[in-house]
Amino acid sequence: MNTRFYNGKILTMKNNMEVLEQELWVVGNKIEYIGDKKESNIKWNREIDLKGNLILPGFKNAHTHSAMTFLRSRADDLPLQEWLNNQVFPREAQLLPEDIYWLSRLAILEYLSSGITSNFDMYFHPREIAKASYDSGFRTVIVGALNDFTQSIEEIEEYYLELNNNEKYDDLISYKLGFHAEYTTSKNLLKGIVELSEKYKAPVWTHNSETLREVNDCINRNGMTPTAYLDSLGIYDNGGGGYHCVYLNEEDKKIFKEKNLTIVTNPSSNIKLASGIARIDKFLEMGIPIAIGTDGPASNNALDMFREMFLVSGLTKVKTQDASVVDGNDVLKMATTVGALAMGLNNCDVLEKGKVADLIVIDLNRPNMQPLNNVSKNIVYSGSKENIKMTMINGEILYENGEFNVGIEVEKIYEKANEITKRIR
Amino acid sequence: MNTRFYNGKILTMKNNMEVLEQELWVVGNKIEYIGDKKESNIKWNREIDLKGNLILPGFKNAHTHSAMTFLRSRADDLPLQEWLNNQVFPREAQLLPEDIYWLSRLAILEYLSSGITSNFDMYFHPREIAKASYDSGFRTVIVGALNDFTQSIEEIEEYYLELNNNEKYDDLISYKLGFHAEYTTSKNLLKGIVELSEKYKAPVWTHNSETLREVNDCINRNGMTPTAYLDSLGIYDNGGGGYHCVYLNEEDKKIFKEKNLTIVTNPSSNIKLASGIARIDKFLEMGIPIAIGTDGPASNNALDMFREMFLVSGLTKVKTQDASVVDGNDVLKMATTVGALAMGLNNCDVLEKGKVADLIVIDLNRPNMQPLNNVSKNIVYSGSKENIKMTMINGEILYENGEFNVGIEVEKIYEKANEITKRIR
Repeated sequence: MNTRFYNGKILTMKNNMEVLEQELWVVGNKIEYIGDKKESNIKWNREIDLKGNLILPGFKNAHTHSAMTFLRSRADDLPLQEWLNNQVFPREAQLLPEDIYWLSRLAILEYLSSGITSNFDMYFHPREIAKASYDSGFRTVIVGALNDFTQSIEEIEEYYLELNNNEKYDDLISYKLGFHAEYTTSKNLLKGIVELSEKYKAPVWTHNSETLREVNDCINRNGMTPTAYLDSLGIYDNGGGGYHCVYLNEEDKKIFKEKNLTIVTNPSSNIKLASGIARIDKFLEMGIPIAIGTDGPASNNALDMFREMFLVSGLTKVKTQDASVVDGNDVLKMATTVGALAMGLNNCDVLEKGKVADLIVIDLNRPNMQPLNNVSKNIVYSGSKENIKMTMINGEILYENGEFNVGIEVEKIYEKANEITKRIR
Repeated sequence: MNTRFYNGKILTMKNNMEVLEQELWVVGNKIEYIGDKKESNIKWNREIDLKGNLILPGFKNAHTHSAMTFLRSRADDLPLQEWLNNQVFPREAQLLPEDIYWLSRLAILEYLSSGITSNFDMYFHPREIAKASYDSGFRTVIVGALNDFTQSIEEIEEYYLELNNNEKYDDLISYKLGFHAEYTTSKNLLKGIVELSEKYKAPVWTHNSETLREVNDCINRNGMTPTAYLDSLGIYDNGGGGYHCVYLNEEDKKIFKEKNLTIVTNPSSNIKLASGIARIDKFLEMGIPIAIGTDGPASNNALDMFREMFLVSGLTKVKTQDASVVDGNDVLKMATTVGALAMGLNNCDVLEKGKVADLIVIDLNRPNMQPLNNVSKNIVYSGSKENIKMTMINGEILYENGEFNVGIEVEKIYEKANEITKRIR
């Protein structure tokens, strides 16, 4: 698709929060031009009058379990262990590979409606995840879900080679090494991951220090925090990072800083499951990269980057009793640029010539964006899904004015998701 | 307007979370019928196929300062006192009465887009607030903003009589006694309010125990907490309640319980200004009525009941480290029924024959509402403004499919709000 956007605003995220009033041209799947109006010989498929609305790099959902849509609103308001052991695990055990396909497709619709252009997805059956994403035209970075009960080192390596092979999935799909968590993964498997990480010089991702209990249990088992323990095994020698990271001590933070690991924060999930509030202010002070994820729809329950952005700042403010910490503009960087770099999407981080056209149009002509005092703060502090006018991935418009363009009727996806949900009681 | 809704679901909020699959008829400004399909002689202006979507009583925004839209995104990420003294107060001093009209109209658009059908509004120039609401077709309960610097007892009584007079404003506008806060209102004025409250047997509303500093300062000045101090003066003898109530001690809570006062909680504002997290679980245990407010757009910055509902539960869960507290269904009651009763809107609390038609249509055919495991939990935990398909107030459709029907072009309101904002530097 060749698309010319004109008569709007552009927040490239390259030069802090500078808003350009220029044109943006997409040719194929790439940004061809950002600049003043000029003549061209390009044959446009669409010429879009933005009517003053704003183009922004798409949001990057840097931690999720998409296919858990079937558990949305299925088991709320329960203590964490009861939720996990009685509601989540027994139902997950009933999932068939094809279920993952449809449940992931449902999540992808919600990502599109929230301006999310790529996700970092940890779940079983990665081939189904890849197919769901590819069929939707969505960009997914899949991460290994290895633990003592599912997937093996051999499978992880197989997925790594297959899903990073661009011949099959263009560059919409990629795969990162990962495992579920320290408390579900034996030392032997962890050593296997370290070997793979060394072999491919590949970063490794995992849940880390989500709850206080997890940290204390790890100390009891290994004499070290999860971060120190994993680091001692060499898990972080090729980079990567941790999901949640609510409970990091000083030494943990130093490891993150020294190895340039990314913290992916998941504020909605952390409060709804009563896990805790991360000290984002401290991570920012130390210059540790921070990205943002929704976590899965079983725990959150929304896949809504606006909710997460507000909370990354709001929760840290109330935790520290200081309304000045975690500036909204820093949060917008986390949700776009930092997320992209963490996920290895170095071509999707900012808007400039040659970058991939993963971008969104924010509707500024809505009451929650008025007056136009400060566009970036409006997005972070008062934005909502109603402001997503368009979501473009890889140069294709997948969502526009509330309508989806994902190669299949959305009703079919809803129907399949409800069927699966009814089957799994 | 006579409107027939069919082929949908109805959550009346009368019988817990029972969802009816029946018709709902609105005749004039009232609900005429909820029941199975049947014949009638009513001449319909609209017959609306709900396509499986859900009718719910409108949300009640039980604490706000609507006209503060001009300060949205104007002064974020600042310490509370600097925000208030350097950013808010000097700019409020520049407001003209007509500004209040336009700034309130802007807020009302946002309420409509969030399914809010009435607000409890504390700000200066109540006649302008009333006019803005009435001209929009919106329902507003205005509350006195008396303090040592603005409004007088005489003015409050004048407003009370004028704005509760239905001849001028039908019943869209009403007025409650109120003052800003203990720390801004002298004992003399408070005694004047008590006299009015006695004279009219009228409840009294005020900000109460929003910050720890406020409570400690009050104890230093009066030897009592704000609640105990105000109660000792007789402020609560005819009911009413408090906005925020983050810091209530055991004795305070007993006063709320014994006098059946309502706590209006404002979670987004309380975290963004780093005020604290209210113990909603304790209030629920004691059976104290709890309503929900967005607070003003200067502090929140969104006027979005979905954000608030998620946080009422989520914040209490993380504060208590117990994911089972504050059930989502209780939150939905707070946002609808309890809010209505607190604001004296006894005809707008639930959906049944004879009640006023203040209702909303929730779009269930969106990815964030699928699968349909549990409709009420979906609304509270994954709902967003994108799910508001229609907002009806007093039998009139003011918002439908993203379009506003408020007697004036929205662009005119945006233009005025931006003009005012530019003038007040």
